[in-house]
Amino acid sequence: MSTGAVEFVQDKKNQQRFLNELKDLLRIPSVSTLPQHKKDVIQAAQFLADELKRIGMENVQIIPTAGHPLVYCDWLHAANKPTVLMYGHYDVQPPDPLDEWKTPPFEPTERDGNIYARGAVDDKGQMYMHVKALEALLQTDAGKLPANVKVLLEGEEEIGGESIAKFVKENPGKLRADFALVSDTEMFAPELPTLNVGLRGLIYTELEATGAKIDLHSGMYGGAAPNPFFALAQVISKLKDDNGKILIPHFYDRVKRPSEDELTAWKALPFNEEEYRKNEVGSKELTGEPGFSVQERTWARPTLEVHGMPGGFVGAGAKTVIPAKAIAKISMRIVPDMKPEEAFEQYKNYVLSLAPKGISLKVTLLSMGEPSIIPTDNPYIKAATAAMKEVFNKDTVFIRSGGSIPIVAEFHKHLKIPSVMMGFGLPDDNLHAPNEKFHIANFYRGIESIVRFVEKLGQ
Amino acid sequence: MSTGAVEFVQDKKNQQRFLNELKDLLRIPSVSTLPQHKKDVIQAAQFLADELKRIGMENVQIIPTAGHPLVYCDWLHAANKPTVLMYGHYDVQPPDPLDEWKTPPFEPTERDGNIYARGAVDDKGQMYMHVKALEALLQTDAGKLPANVKVLLEGEEEIGGESIAKFVKENPGKLRADFALVSDTEMFAPELPTLNVGLRGLIYTELEATGAKIDLHSGMYGGAAPNPFFALAQVISKLKDDNGKILIPHFYDRVKRPSEDELTAWKALPFNEEEYRKNEVGSKELTGEPGFSVQERTWARPTLEVHGMPGGFVGAGAKTVIPAKAIAKISMRIVPDMKPEEAFEQYKNYVLSLAPKGISLKVTLLSMGEPSIIPTDNPYIKAATAAMKEVFNKDTVFIRSGGSIPIVAEFHKHLKIPSVMMGFGLPDDNLHAPNEKFHIANFYRGIESIVRFVEKLGQ
Repeated sequence: MSTGAVEFVQDKKNQQRFLNELKDLLRIPSVSTLPQHKKDVIQAAQFLADELKRIGMENVQIIPTAGHPLVYCDWLHAANKPTVLMYGHYDVQPPDPLDEWKTPPFEPTERDGNIYARGAVDDKGQMYMHVKALEALLQTDAGKLPANVKVLLEGEEEIGGESIAKFVKENPGKLRADFALVSDTEMFAPELPTLNVGLRGLIYTELEATGAKIDLHSGMYGGAAPNPFFALAQVISKLKDDNGKILIPHFYDRVKRPSEDELTAWKALPFNEEEYRKNEVGSKELTGEPGFSVQERTWARPTLEVHGMPGGFVGAGAKTVIPAKAIAKISMRIVPDMKPEEAFEQYKNYVLSLAPKGISLKVTLLSMGEPSIIPTDNPYIKAATAAMKEVFNKDTVFIRSGGSIPIVAEFHKHLKIPSVMMGFGLPDDNLHAPNEKFHIANFYRGIESIVRFVEKLGQ
Repeated sequence: MSTGAVEFVQDKKNQQRFLNELKDLLRIPSVSTLPQHKKDVIQAAQFLADELKRIGMENVQIIPTAGHPLVYCDWLHAANKPTVLMYGHYDVQPPDPLDEWKTPPFEPTERDGNIYARGAVDDKGQMYMHVKALEALLQTDAGKLPANVKVLLEGEEEIGGESIAKFVKENPGKLRADFALVSDTEMFAPELPTLNVGLRGLIYTELEATGAKIDLHSGMYGGAAPNPFFALAQVISKLKDDNGKILIPHFYDRVKRPSEDELTAWKALPFNEEEYRKNEVGSKELTGEPGFSVQERTWARPTLEVHGMPGGFVGAGAKTVIPAKAIAKISMRIVPDMKPEEAFEQYKNYVLSLAPKGISLKVTLLSMGEPSIIPTDNPYIKAATAAMKEVFNKDTVFIRSGGSIPIVAEFHKHLKIPSVMMGFGLPDDNLHAPNEKFHIANFYRGIESIVRFVEKLGQ
């Protein structure tokens, strides 16, 4: 039986079919943040519900929410075996800027052993590994699984995951499990099996500056009317110093430095800062707080970024307008033991204290998620490590991620369970960027790792 | 004969027809900066050429250029009389933000004695006053004019006027005249006949900041990758101090303060700063250099404005991207005796010296125009003043404008002629902004003023 499921996922014909199915899913433009894609998000949920039913999962439900629906199913007949709650998300980031994609974001295309599409790795491809692992196990053992499995998929991860957070809080009984399995992270390097044991939290805001009551001509009014873009530039320039240190008072007060052991392990990771600068980032220099490694800066230090500044004239050519309003989309990553509510208040109070002459500022919170640290001394982490060793023939490294998976904090808070973050993305997969991809070999290795992992849970 | 033309323009039926024709012109979305409106710009040129021909002007030509066409015509049979070169532009600013218009920008709508449409006052409505004045004169004197008239209309004023500048430079003989008449300015206050005798120049640029080679995920790379929006905020915040004083080295070196007489006359203008702040600008406070009046700040001091910051994510909701690139559209108004080329170099050198760590900056010049001062001791200014006194029954005030009409500098430079800037816009006409309007009474008074002015030229 055990060999059967692994052979099933190693079968070339099955692998081709898995990939074709994934392409069908990637063709659905389930961009959760854009209202015009609401039907596509629902279609992706339906696609997954149909597939989970087809492979033999039970109690398949599309659960409506105030936002996009959840997909739930389970199989709970493995008496005295642990229960895993498998999580993934079927929504994707917007594809813009469209003109930088080599092939269209919603026409999945194979190139050089990769599949290119919006959502390829984040998270449709990785979520679909779970589905195909479950299929392999069910198909090769007469519809049975070696452990108990609950699956919960959401369509709002990219917009803050509000509905799933509410659902988790209100349904701890239905979701009771021993741990969660989340595949929405990446491997530290190609061929290096990786478990993620720490995540930064996120505070996403909009800062709106209003000057005049209407857009004004810069010839007529330049010299008298306040300019909201100039005001935003003044405010933003005071949020970080030239080195990237955040200047919000007391923002760092609760930051907990990683242990010496963890910092030492990070130093041993295969990492060449110059190659990272050149090949991954591609900028002239790296930035960030002096005195901290790239790993510590991106995994364990708070950061603040500006994502876009809508307003005014953004077309080609010249328009001499002093816009009435301008907005800056600003987010912060926060780390243990910072508290999101407190950090947001610190940010908001500081920003509002910086309002330039003649300008009204408004701060809006779009979403918020807690940072988290996962303990590594539990049997599920050990089983995951063993399963990946069989697939990759290498020891697993423990890293953190600078990104945010708010659901991990929700699982910890409301279900009191840890999450095993077993991800198979690669550092150059262009997450949230044009030409997002997933390495096809990792798609297959991910499915096999999960099959072996669930088998070990049943032993 | 004299009375005839004035009566013609005071005739209610004629006035209604003039307004209906203007509406037809305003319906053509001749936005010069947007390539998709190229055909509309040509259609506006054709509309005017047809009309100039119909009213009896001679040698009507649509002159192709590298950009949008010019429209030329003349009537040159008034022996021993002066020649006026009438100038106007038939292109308009983009209408965005569209959702702030009460009625659509290209569906001219009458409300409260005004006509609302993009281009209503800037400059279709004002340019069309010239056409209707010529019609009145020609129709009431058997196809003859009291003075010699050349008309030159352009379709690139809102994008820098490059083609007309080239044409003026290359055709001084064809355009030879005693002075130019330009109606593209405003009255200082309702009912107050105004001639504009000074203009600021314009330098319009794009500042592009590049950090990473591709858009990056702010969770993964926040703390290591440079953020071009943050970099632009840092640079922009160093271009002006908190009071609006420009910090570019030597930028003010050539600024010539207006004469004491001129400053004293400005102080006598009917102007209430608090009403201006509240009703025209509508901001909490006015901004600009301390120690200078609103008139001096907006007419005789250089200023710097940010018009928009394209790049990154500007949709609704949250996208956690560190964009590879961001742009700031930045322009400067310059005053006598500043030189645009020199001022641009000062700006560019200073900006490039501010490049933050990891960021490449690129400065692009989109357009440039010289500041100008018009002498007031010539017979054309005197005739214009007399004509307006007959219409408004009030003495004319001499003001400057903070805006830029580069063609005035070109006429001075290449044709060696002064310009009479006789404008009939009002301060609250929403130039370049949503809900642009033209006061319909001023449209008619403008036509009558021009009729009387041209009649005086012939006396």
